[in-house]
Amino acid sequence: MELLTILLILLVVTRACGEVALRFGQPVLVGELLGGIALGVVARQFEGTFPVLANLPDHEVFRAISDLGVFFLMLYAGMEMHPRDLVGTSGKALNVAIGGMVVPLAAGLALGWIALPQSEYLVPQVAFLGTALAITAVPVAVKVLMDLKRLDSRPGKMIVSAAIFDDIISLVLLAILTALIRTGEWPGATGLLLLGGKVLGFLVVTVLVGHFVMPWVADRLKWLKLEELEFSWLLMVGLGFAVFAEALHLHFILGAFAAGLFFTRRTFNQTAFKAVNQKVSAITNGFLAPLFFAGIGMHLDVSAFTAIPGFVFTLVAVAVLAKVIGAGVAAYWSGLKRKESLEVGIGMSARGAVELIIADIALRAGLFNRPDPPPPVIEHMFSAVVIMAIATTLLTPILLRWLGAGDKDGSG
Amino acid sequence: MELLTILLILLVVTRACGEVALRFGQPVLVGELLGGIALGVVARQFEGTFPVLANLPDHEVFRAISDLGVFFLMLYAGMEMHPRDLVGTSGKALNVAIGGMVVPLAAGLALGWIALPQSEYLVPQVAFLGTALAITAVPVAVKVLMDLKRLDSRPGKMIVSAAIFDDIISLVLLAILTALIRTGEWPGATGLLLLGGKVLGFLVVTVLVGHFVMPWVADRLKWLKLEELEFSWLLMVGLGFAVFAEALHLHFILGAFAAGLFFTRRTFNQTAFKAVNQKVSAITNGFLAPLFFAGIGMHLDVSAFTAIPGFVFTLVAVAVLAKVIGAGVAAYWSGLKRKESLEVGIGMSARGAVELIIADIALRAGLFNRPDPPPPVIEHMFSAVVIMAIATTLLTPILLRWLGAGDKDGSG
Repeated sequence: MELLTILLILLVVTRACGEVALRFGQPVLVGELLGGIALGVVARQFEGTFPVLANLPDHEVFRAISDLGVFFLMLYAGMEMHPRDLVGTSGKALNVAIGGMVVPLAAGLALGWIALPQSEYLVPQVAFLGTALAITAVPVAVKVLMDLKRLDSRPGKMIVSAAIFDDIISLVLLAILTALIRTGEWPGATGLLLLGGKVLGFLVVTVLVGHFVMPWVADRLKWLKLEELEFSWLLMVGLGFAVFAEALHLHFILGAFAAGLFFTRRTFNQTAFKAVNQKVSAITNGFLAPLFFAGIGMHLDVSAFTAIPGFVFTLVAVAVLAKVIGAGVAAYWSGLKRKESLEVGIGMSARGAVELIIADIALRAGLFNRPDPPPPVIEHMFSAVVIMAIATTLLTPILLRWLGAGDKDGSG
Repeated sequence: MELLTILLILLVVTRACGEVALRFGQPVLVGELLGGIALGVVARQFEGTFPVLANLPDHEVFRAISDLGVFFLMLYAGMEMHPRDLVGTSGKALNVAIGGMVVPLAAGLALGWIALPQSEYLVPQVAFLGTALAITAVPVAVKVLMDLKRLDSRPGKMIVSAAIFDDIISLVLLAILTALIRTGEWPGATGLLLLGGKVLGFLVVTVLVGHFVMPWVADRLKWLKLEELEFSWLLMVGLGFAVFAEALHLHFILGAFAAGLFFTRRTFNQTAFKAVNQKVSAITNGFLAPLFFAGIGMHLDVSAFTAIPGFVFTLVAVAVLAKVIGAGVAAYWSGLKRKESLEVGIGMSARGAVELIIADIALRAGLFNRPDPPPPVIEHMFSAVVIMAIATTLLTPILLRWLGAGDKDGSG
């Protein structure tokens, strides 16, 4: 069984590297990501010996298991938070989300306009760069905060709320970008209004179901005799919300997060909540999340480092600074202290998973082959954006730790 | 995400049917299997509407997740048993295993000789039928016993030990069958001796590692700071043993079971054991095992029911009776009471998963197309064997329940 071998190798490497990261005072995530990077480099070096491992990011089954990892990560993050927290910070978080998107978007557009060569494909290429910089990776931000035990802090709540808003707004950007790439035209207002309607529909349905239907059903579940019923129930709601989100062309992570959010200490009772929480934590932190982060690390393709080092360096610097300024200033204006605002800015700068998906869409659409032959900065754009995604994912926890966020232990 | 939709549908259907089964005094497994059958029938009826669901048994990702389900099921079963129990019953269990293989094998060969038409392909076809009847499905037997809370009983321990032996012996049968199908020749003694050596090697290594290395490492793990470490450690050993088994061309389920077996209350401590056990139980009983059993049910292809009803009926009857007689008499001779022996015989008669794999190998090798054109009994042999596998999987828990095995509640 090929799959079992892959899981074994990844689990051993990520857990060992996670422990080493802890010893260096870093969050587990840093170790898992570095472990994945190292594994990817070694596997590609000896591609003949490890063909499956070298091409793991394209492995259909591994991708599915990674997605399952993100699903559980968001479910778990939702359980760790209270709906009230998000509502309480939502006004300020919306400011942070908008600040944290507009500034990087503008910076990305400006960078593209300066660095990319003039051609008839310049508009979609610049739009791609702007989108890639504007997005925040919710699962990464969430895991970083959990590793640092900062999910429940004031900046932590604000980062998660803002990242969720970001995720929704990024769908608008993505819709525009996709239309630009495919048709070369800006999308009509109808499409964007429709998207707004879908987001509203998703919010209304999940809040109504989560607030009224879920507790009602949970009350009736006591009559059933099935084993592991609470756990199955959480999964069913999570899967249901995730499928609903996908049906509306939103990300499934929104559904998983919403389900976790509405599964509280009062859904069944304190004991049942704690038991289910520990079970989801085991699958997430002890099994699937390390695989997901190692998978991100394995995407690293260093060709841009040698071909266009200046552009790569600028891209990473702009990626971090634009988020720190955009989200950080918005947080400061919303009344957070200076250090807390800096924490929010850094927390929002993790890119990770979503970036890789967008870069993949652009790659498949042939955006990096034009004009023919493409200049180096276009040819290696995919590699550069992947490096940026991984670098920001790695820098976020390290910078936060350096800032003094998280307890001294930092395990988790 | 197609996968999330599949998981949602299967989880809702299997859990609901599991509850209904409990209400009728049947084990959960019966409901999960019937739910899978119903889902398969409906999906194939409306194949245009549910193309993915109709062809789910061929879905690569779903198969991988099913395999993960079997992995966790065997890991959990191992944790629920003590190595000492298996050693204590191993002598008697070997008798039961041999009795429970020889009688069905002979019955299968005889049935094939009588019912199948004379042709140059008769020998491999008869050998296939014998092998199909001789095998016991370990994961099914284990789940039935867990559902009935009989894993820890005298017949329960004997069934599991004997089923494990059966699984190993069946590899010999499978080696012979594969050689017969592929080359038309009986395999040499060297190949069989090599297989024996591999089995011995597997036992020696897992026992040494499980008994000496695992406790030593577990002791050192206390020094690490990682979260969910005990859970990850169990998974790593399970995956390691499973990969080792596969490398020796044995089943990965043997590895998962061995890892669970050596993970005891003394590996870490009572509390840690209980916590890990509950986590594995949640993934197994609340998530993956229902999917696996539904998947088996969805394999049902009823064409043989209408084409060769007499043969199907005889096959199922012979399948149950031969196991009951072969394993039951051996158990009785080994000193079990009459009712306990009957319980062992019935418990050994579950076929399930392995059968489907063997039938698939034979189907791909073209065994059911010869001679050309094949007579009905050959043409529908695949369907007949699948029906037999599902029918015995269904009959085993129902008959055991009828025999009065398991507590009145039977939940789980």
